[in-house]
Amino acid sequence: MARLVEVTELILRDGHQSLMATRMALEDMVPVCEDLDNAGYWSVECWGGATFDACIRFLNEDPWERLRTFRRLMPKTRLQMLLRGQNLLGYRHYEDGVVERFVEKAAQNGMDVFRVFDALNDMRNLRTALRAVKKTGKHAQGTICYTVSPVHSVGDFIEMAEQLVDFGCDSICIKDMAALLKPQPAYDLVKGIKQACGEDVLVHVHTHATTGVTMVSLMKAIEAGADIVDTSISALSLGPGHNPTESLVEMLEGTPYRTRLDLEKILKVRDHFKKIRPRYAEFLSDITGVETEIFRSQIPGGMISNMESQLKQQGAGDRVREVLEEVPRVREDAGFPPLVTPSSQIVGTQAVFNVLMGRYKVLTGEFADLMLGYYGNTLGVKNAEVVTKAVAHAKKDPITCRPADLLKPEWEQLRGQALSLQGCNGSDEDVLTFAMFPQVAPKFFSTRDQGPKNLGKDPAAKPAAPAPPSAPAAAGPVHYNITLNGKTHKVTVSPVA
Amino acid sequence: MARLVEVTELILRDGHQSLMATRMALEDMVPVCEDLDNAGYWSVECWGGATFDACIRFLNEDPWERLRTFRRLMPKTRLQMLLRGQNLLGYRHYEDGVVERFVEKAAQNGMDVFRVFDALNDMRNLRTALRAVKKTGKHAQGTICYTVSPVHSVGDFIEMAEQLVDFGCDSICIKDMAALLKPQPAYDLVKGIKQACGEDVLVHVHTHATTGVTMVSLMKAIEAGADIVDTSISALSLGPGHNPTESLVEMLEGTPYRTRLDLEKILKVRDHFKKIRPRYAEFLSDITGVETEIFRSQIPGGMISNMESQLKQQGAGDRVREVLEEVPRVREDAGFPPLVTPSSQIVGTQAVFNVLMGRYKVLTGEFADLMLGYYGNTLGVKNAEVVTKAVAHAKKDPITCRPADLLKPEWEQLRGQALSLQGCNGSDEDVLTFAMFPQVAPKFFSTRDQGPKNLGKDPAAKPAAPAPPSAPAAAGPVHYNITLNGKTHKVTVSPVA
Repeated sequence: MARLVEVTELILRDGHQSLMATRMALEDMVPVCEDLDNAGYWSVECWGGATFDACIRFLNEDPWERLRTFRRLMPKTRLQMLLRGQNLLGYRHYEDGVVERFVEKAAQNGMDVFRVFDALNDMRNLRTALRAVKKTGKHAQGTICYTVSPVHSVGDFIEMAEQLVDFGCDSICIKDMAALLKPQPAYDLVKGIKQACGEDVLVHVHTHATTGVTMVSLMKAIEAGADIVDTSISALSLGPGHNPTESLVEMLEGTPYRTRLDLEKILKVRDHFKKIRPRYAEFLSDITGVETEIFRSQIPGGMISNMESQLKQQGAGDRVREVLEEVPRVREDAGFPPLVTPSSQIVGTQAVFNVLMGRYKVLTGEFADLMLGYYGNTLGVKNAEVVTKAVAHAKKDPITCRPADLLKPEWEQLRGQALSLQGCNGSDEDVLTFAMFPQVAPKFFSTRDQGPKNLGKDPAAKPAAPAPPSAPAAAGPVHYNITLNGKTHKVTVSPVA
Repeated sequence: MARLVEVTELILRDGHQSLMATRMALEDMVPVCEDLDNAGYWSVECWGGATFDACIRFLNEDPWERLRTFRRLMPKTRLQMLLRGQNLLGYRHYEDGVVERFVEKAAQNGMDVFRVFDALNDMRNLRTALRAVKKTGKHAQGTICYTVSPVHSVGDFIEMAEQLVDFGCDSICIKDMAALLKPQPAYDLVKGIKQACGEDVLVHVHTHATTGVTMVSLMKAIEAGADIVDTSISALSLGPGHNPTESLVEMLEGTPYRTRLDLEKILKVRDHFKKIRPRYAEFLSDITGVETEIFRSQIPGGMISNMESQLKQQGAGDRVREVLEEVPRVREDAGFPPLVTPSSQIVGTQAVFNVLMGRYKVLTGEFADLMLGYYGNTLGVKNAEVVTKAVAHAKKDPITCRPADLLKPEWEQLRGQALSLQGCNGSDEDVLTFAMFPQVAPKFFSTRDQGPKNLGKDPAAKPAAPAPPSAPAAAGPVHYNITLNGKTHKVTVSPVA
């Protein structure tokens, strides 16, 4: 009898996050929930920082309501989320009380599996969240961010796994967010974790497809004993996304491994998203092929496009190559953090500054904090000269303690601020929404009544060819200064057909 | 020391054949030949039936001149071609003398490796071509077309390999033209061939990427001892094409296997074809993702699009699904031939006829020939009722001999016909061009003087993206009707910043 390999479906979170800028509306997911629920997944990943953010920023959708909807529509299957450790779904460290409250509320609203990671792999940043998950009785998954650097070895990752097991994690995730995990390290890592932590410790492998090698890495991970793997149904797979679920099922035929997935149901889901995908054409990733240069630069594809747009805004779009060469240097100076939210943004932005204004002439506040330990420890040693600059810039000393130990209880203050906002419903969920995204939540609360927006567009409505330059594309009225008979008027104009 | 795995580069033949309808002009390949020649490939595939056909049909390019150009520009690397056994590059059986002449001329013009296959896997159809290759001293590669059916087992394919070794082949190719080769059979097949034929028999594995599993199959084939694998540089890879060359190189890092490819040179070639690819946008395959339903239907992607266009021409575009269900039935009736040129066309067209006119109410001449053994033997037993219908239709008896045994010497006649054509230069090469494509060659000979056509189009001619709705994109003045103080004016307006 072949060994059962379980599968986590990513299409409702990381799938559309990686391929269509997280813009998919709940409305477009609802029709497939029943099939997903009956397809035989170990879990369905459906919630995380970017989906939460996109809900309130772009979709006028309450992310908590989205979660409750999934819970209602998928009663049989574990719901899974991605949690940035002490950062929760935001970009800063939260005080422990907020972390505990968030986990408790997420569990109450229906979350089953909490995949908890820290961008720097500082295990101290996972502890509060993992402990909070354990307290709710839900599944606490401790995560190792996989990266490649001169200071990272398979042994280091195995040691992290051992710490996570000591924390009482229900499973260990190897998170390969940049498609850097090659087949042999995948095998060695899973094998090593099983040997060090025990064969019964569940190992869950997350990879992206970008480099074209990670389907093989999944196979080798399975051969080494991986229990659960992540894939995304083909309609939203490959490129910067993930390996296709259907291919994984087929790949195992005849091997000593099997899934329990029902391909008929998965193909129905595939057909649905095949129809939905073109409606989000404007958000779709341009990348459909593979990109192996990531192995040299260590820079994930999404990070490159972010930096490109930053450079263009500064009128320096031609300096991308310099920035790409600067990133590995900045990363080395910062002690070789893995590049994943938020470290990828912090290192990337500093690299842009270095190229535009001279190396470390200007430090961003976030980069100074990173250098001074305010995000946690890195595996590599930091460049002492740059640390000195960071001290001067930030006017504070480096720390070695767990960053959240410096924070004071903040729940009551957050609650006070949230409750003062128009449209806040007074629930803990709303306070948490505000706590995560204080810039965005106020507007969301005030417009929530208007109901969700679906940014998908009927491709039939898409103009076949762009309008010729002589016909302005103004949809509504436009304001002009018009000089008529020598006199200038401020005029509002609507184009005629 | 890791074992060396050699690589054949497909981008100059099957890569653009699978992804851009074989339309790439020699002119667009010339700039990369030096880098390909120095990159460390075992061979570069660059010639075959479809490329030969496209040269004279669409590109007004002499395929023999293309071959000589490759030879001149890639002096260090083996040039490889795909040869349809007794069909050569055409769609019918040629008499042995023509086969021998073709091989001799291809070798003289610079071909090194002849990958010889038969669509039905009737090994008798390979013998003359393989013998002719051996006579030239070039590399004779015997090929097994991989397929899946109730009558095909790994053992059958191993037996075919043994026959090919008995023929004196220099290597054995497992040709997976429909991306059906899953990891476990890939392993079993290579292992089985090595065990049955000897470890020193070179095994070469060709797969397509369509189903998303074959990169893993290449890994398992390598683990089983495969000596050479086929890939295509990423700029023309995936979808109905092949696994990316760069990914294969990276995949092997840290394993007990290695290639000798120079990634720097390959990335230069990648950059070139990344620029060239959009110029052929109108010919590009729509498929960029994976398609796993092929495992159910056994119908290769290219065949589906062919049948769709046949059905549309008949105004029956809505009956694709019926045809897709009919194909496996027709294939079973025909004794489960692999589906590859020309059997894929023959079976597909008959399935279309069956749906449109009733099952076997009308037989194509080619399908009758297939049923009567005029293409060779199949592994499965044919449906006797359909054979009876074929006898009645074709007014000839079934045969069991090698089909070419029935043919009379035809070289002199072909030569006479070719030499009578305007523009024929009298060479054996021209006679062979005529022999392969008698419908197309006359026009080509008469227009050859005009030189090659490049069907690529400058994408700069493509209009840029439409302007956002709130900001009119008017570059110059725009004309409006404006009502101001109750009076309508025709006004020319320039937007202000």
